[in-house]
Amino acid sequence: MRYQLYYWPTIQGRGEYVRLALEEAGAAYTDVARGGNGVAAMMKMMGAGKGVPPFAPPFLKVGNLVISHTANILLYLGSRHDLAPKAEAGKLAVHALQLTITDFVVEVHDTHHPLGPSLYYEDQKGPAKKRTAEFWKSRVPKYLGYFEDLLDANGGAYVTGRRVTYVDLSLFQLVAGLRYAFPSRMKTFERKIPGLIGLHDRVAARPNIKAYLASDRRIAFNEDGIFRRYKPLDV
Amino acid sequence: MRYQLYYWPTIQGRGEYVRLALEEAGAAYTDVARGGNGVAAMMKMMGAGKGVPPFAPPFLKVGNLVISHTANILLYLGSRHDLAPKAEAGKLAVHALQLTITDFVVEVHDTHHPLGPSLYYEDQKGPAKKRTAEFWKSRVPKYLGYFEDLLDANGGAYVTGRRVTYVDLSLFQLVAGLRYAFPSRMKTFERKIPGLIGLHDRVAARPNIKAYLASDRRIAFNEDGIFRRYKPLDV
Repeated sequence: MRYQLYYWPTIQGRGEYVRLALEEAGAAYTDVARGGNGVAAMMKMMGAGKGVPPFAPPFLKVGNLVISHTANILLYLGSRHDLAPKAEAGKLAVHALQLTITDFVVEVHDTHHPLGPSLYYEDQKGPAKKRTAEFWKSRVPKYLGYFEDLLDANGGAYVTGRRVTYVDLSLFQLVAGLRYAFPSRMKTFERKIPGLIGLHDRVAARPNIKAYLASDRRIAFNEDGIFRRYKPLDV
Repeated sequence: MRYQLYYWPTIQGRGEYVRLALEEAGAAYTDVARGGNGVAAMMKMMGAGKGVPPFAPPFLKVGNLVISHTANILLYLGSRHDLAPKAEAGKLAVHALQLTITDFVVEVHDTHHPLGPSLYYEDQKGPAKKRTAEFWKSRVPKYLGYFEDLLDANGGAYVTGRRVTYVDLSLFQLVAGLRYAFPSRMKTFERKIPGLIGLHDRVAARPNIKAYLASDRRIAFNEDGIFRRYKPLDV
């Protein structure tokens, strides 16, 4: 069964965590909105009609099943592609970690959009500066410190132990994204998370991920995504 | 098996969505942090050690299993207490709706904390005003409009059809919370969501919920929770 992924075609965004899982799994998928009329097809599936149409991308179509929300899609894919435990306890635990990442991603986005997602960054530069300062002072250390501790407590290879899960792929993306958006701040901060930096490198070296990152399926970071490089925010 | 819920003892917050589900289910549970030494017990379980300790409350202990994140706890409880479909497709669909509510709850919190959760509201009153204006102009209509449409498309009783799910309990809480925090704005807006107002009343009238709301187990809304009544934000 070929998966159909629906997500904005020009950004990594929240879809990237799904792309990384599909790529690591070597799963056959179409990134629908990147093909002809794909965005129109995506918009048509959202927001109205009987059943439970998605509120927003990303969503994954598997036959007649449509699954929305990044963490929910990963929950579905994880146990099918050996990227999470199959037993309920482990499945819920890994899902909880992904939901913590979801919360962090919102906070990353809020650094450049503290006054809301509907306004431009240019209209909220001052508040963005303040929010970003707070983000690096307390939020990054709290979130990444948690994952660093977890990694350490569970042996140092991957965050829940010796086997890679979709959470590790997402942590790779967080490190890569923070490096892109905040090169200067991240340079200093990386010393505090040696474990996560090692994990980032280990994920990047996995054959399927390595091939993906070198392909044109990997969209470059840019200023429409979650991780944006705005000089005034990276002091 | 008696559930042990861990959440901050003086606010409804994110724990309230879990409390509502447990109450509707008539499940036996202890609200641990509201008892003696409960907060200390809760803090002890967080953030470090082998396995996957919770990042933050709420979390639910079921025997040896510890499940964190509101939506994840509801995913677990839903199929066990007839508050969500048992089959995978329905389970994932209801979970997706709850994750949309999770996103909305973050945006509610950001109305009074646009510069970050670590600063006081008093230090971000100006940005809070702007974020709140944006919230009511575009975010509330988008989110609640989505649920209103869904309710309408699925028959008008509950959001996915004739049977109540934990999502309906959460939608009750959103309406109640918005009424508390923004009485004046909500008074005007309610005309646009007659279906959700009806759903709110239907949930409030369910015997177990009605008894819960009248009990002292229901903590009153207050200015430490997600929904806060700050006059300058309710124009």
